[in-house]
Amino acid sequence: MPYGFVNSMRTRPGHRDDVVAILLEGVDGLRAAGCRLYAVGVVEDDPDLVRVSEIWESKEHHDRSLDLPETKAAIARAMPLLTGEFASQEMTVLGGLGV
Amino acid sequence: MPYGFVNSMRTRPGHRDDVVAILLEGVDGLRAAGCRLYAVGVVEDDPDLVRVSEIWESKEHHDRSLDLPETKAAIARAMPLLTGEFASQEMTVLGGLGV
Repeated sequence: MPYGFVNSMRTRPGHRDDVVAILLEGVDGLRAAGCRLYAVGVVEDDPDLVRVSEIWESKEHHDRSLDLPETKAAIARAMPLLTGEFASQEMTVLGGLGV
Repeated sequence: MPYGFVNSMRTRPGHRDDVVAILLEGVDGLRAAGCRLYAVGVVEDDPDLVRVSEIWESKEHHDRSLDLPETKAAIARAMPLLTGEFASQEMTVLGGLGV
């Protein structure tokens, strides 16, 4: 079943746009890894929050993507810009539009 | 800018699948209303939770969709099956894959 994942991460003050740029750089390889959606966004009332909404072919595809060299490199570059506060939500996608 | 919305809703015990069915019935008209993604899902460790991840052309498209007759009808049918506990997250989508 398709797997949905929403991850909200807090950035160090002033580094939100840097984190967004890092997350968007690695997008090209995601489709081949089984990613259907990877939407990077920000929120109006919190200048230090980045949110990513993802849909993958399966949870296994998502989990394996974390081992890709480009994913690891992006995480290594982003981590110093993050506070370490993450909040994530998962779901098993049963249907809908665009999934 | 594209607008992302994730809504988690608690169903009355045993009514999760009914709510999922109602949410999936109205999917056909969403694209014309400016919806790019409408993923309905469930979570492994909570049998009474339904989660919907949406991406729209804009926040205005999303807000206007709530006035569509089919949306109003679906909400009216689902409400008696819900406890009233909702948790939602918004974002302005800056880029990514599939958006």
